[in-house]
Amino acid sequence: MTEYRIPDITDIKEAGERIKGYIHNTPLLSSQTLNSITGADVVFKCENFQRAGAFKFRGACNAVFSLKESILKNGVATHSSGNHAAALSLAAKIKGIKAYVVMPENAPEIKKKAVAGYGAEITFCKPTLEARETTLQKVVKNTGATVIHPYNNFNVICGQGTAALEIQDVVTPDIVMAPVGGGGLISGTALAVKNMSAKTLVYGAEPSGADDAFKSFYGNVFVPSVNPDTIADGLLTSLGEINYTIIKRYVDEIFTASDDTIIKAMRLIWERMKIIVEPSSAVPLAVMLEHPEKFRKKKVTVIITGGNADLDNLPF
Amino acid sequence: MTEYRIPDITDIKEAGERIKGYIHNTPLLSSQTLNSITGADVVFKCENFQRAGAFKFRGACNAVFSLKESILKNGVATHSSGNHAAALSLAAKIKGIKAYVVMPENAPEIKKKAVAGYGAEITFCKPTLEARETTLQKVVKNTGATVIHPYNNFNVICGQGTAALEIQDVVTPDIVMAPVGGGGLISGTALAVKNMSAKTLVYGAEPSGADDAFKSFYGNVFVPSVNPDTIADGLLTSLGEINYTIIKRYVDEIFTASDDTIIKAMRLIWERMKIIVEPSSAVPLAVMLEHPEKFRKKKVTVIITGGNADLDNLPF
Repeated sequence: MTEYRIPDITDIKEAGERIKGYIHNTPLLSSQTLNSITGADVVFKCENFQRAGAFKFRGACNAVFSLKESILKNGVATHSSGNHAAALSLAAKIKGIKAYVVMPENAPEIKKKAVAGYGAEITFCKPTLEARETTLQKVVKNTGATVIHPYNNFNVICGQGTAALEIQDVVTPDIVMAPVGGGGLISGTALAVKNMSAKTLVYGAEPSGADDAFKSFYGNVFVPSVNPDTIADGLLTSLGEINYTIIKRYVDEIFTASDDTIIKAMRLIWERMKIIVEPSSAVPLAVMLEHPEKFRKKKVTVIITGGNADLDNLPF
Repeated sequence: MTEYRIPDITDIKEAGERIKGYIHNTPLLSSQTLNSITGADVVFKCENFQRAGAFKFRGACNAVFSLKESILKNGVATHSSGNHAAALSLAAKIKGIKAYVVMPENAPEIKKKAVAGYGAEITFCKPTLEARETTLQKVVKNTGATVIHPYNNFNVICGQGTAALEIQDVVTPDIVMAPVGGGGLISGTALAVKNMSAKTLVYGAEPSGADDAFKSFYGNVFVPSVNPDTIADGLLTSLGEINYTIIKRYVDEIFTASDDTIIKAMRLIWERMKIIVEPSSAVPLAVMLEHPEKFRKKKVTVIITGGNADLDNLPF
């Protein structure tokens, strides 16, 4: 592993100041029905209402806004078919610079449209990780753009941690829980929470079909994701190295939930809270349904990660 | 027509005090994308987040809470397969009294479950208006319960008007627009708005397949709804008499929109605002899409009426 600095609370607070006015301070919602189902006192931090539809905009904004003008002018680049691509494109648009996005040619039309809608220049490639990386290298060589990794990046982690700052301004929960994919959100959240309220527990929630963080955490060795398979398409990515280091140090527990429970939890949120969340966002509630004893009578804050669900292809 | 008193702003403010602490002061949300699509500055009053999932809870609460103890103890009754039944059941539950709900036997399971979930006593009947009314009369005879009409009722209208009070606490719009079904919401809204800001225009939005209010308003004669047909199932009911009188006096214009545009508008709200709204709630946005010149550069507040959409039977 390479050397890197772990962000501290000052870095996250600086990120908060840097992106203030560009991001939404998203609402905290609760539901009496979900409280009675879980036996807990649950508050949802609704990043599905964040700009570009997901928490990813926080990290992308902070990473873009942190670049020096001389570097910024060449634009930013990433390969992604998901929320990070849209978030980075919007952050670049705000700064008036180019975003270059490498997308697999089979990415859903709705995601292609979203990224193009923010003015990004899209390069399509074959749907393999190798093709994505090779194509991205070519794009960077031709443009001089700076690659912004979706989670294994200091400034992205600081940006994602700002959601937890907003929570702590309002409530001090017993537990804060967020989904784990690449680990950008959970690592930023854990850093922020533990530095503000040491007694608040930080839990990660992972689909059992993509449980590389769970295995890495409890196996004490970094296990890359192999053939992940879950309805929670935002959580298919492999845990990042910096993220793993932070998780090991600051996260208290990681739980998994089955896809069946994730789908059930997603539908509960849609029906009872009247908000649209993508499958990944339902994983923490699914964990609460599968492990009720861990949450009963606790004040739990769950980060709802995004609302970019495909309405033509619902899992229920 | 029988004699009746039209509510004034004092009645609506008293309703607001009466139901305070029981209802949610629902959030106002906006979307930059919807603003750029409509060319207007639109704020949505999100009654889909109201308890029991719709604005109906305001009117039901106010009607139930306004009854004398001696009358209240015999319970309340209604025939409805929709949001009013659930709202009345929850209001009765809060007061610790019985709610008797007559429902057509073919009502959707989800609505039966919602009403039963609030502890109401359900009597099923054949799915005709005649059977509903006869069955309700029998229930009332047996129980002594007070019938709470879903919209043609003084206290219900006052309750529905409280949503507009909350809007006016925050913004003074150029236009306030709400859907028109039986007319409970639009009449309460018009009374509240016109008494607080005389220059704010109040518009009604109706599906072209259920345009009895439109015809009554412009024809200057009360036209009952005959064989209405629209995806906006909450707006199939015929306009009430008290509601018609108030609409004639206080509403500025009524517009219609086609079901195709309503479905398009509903999907836009789901995709762009990440909130779940039922088809009826999308009618005002559909009107804005069909009559953009009426709204361009205006500050428009739209009341989102409810979020009880059937997830197994989406129109898109």
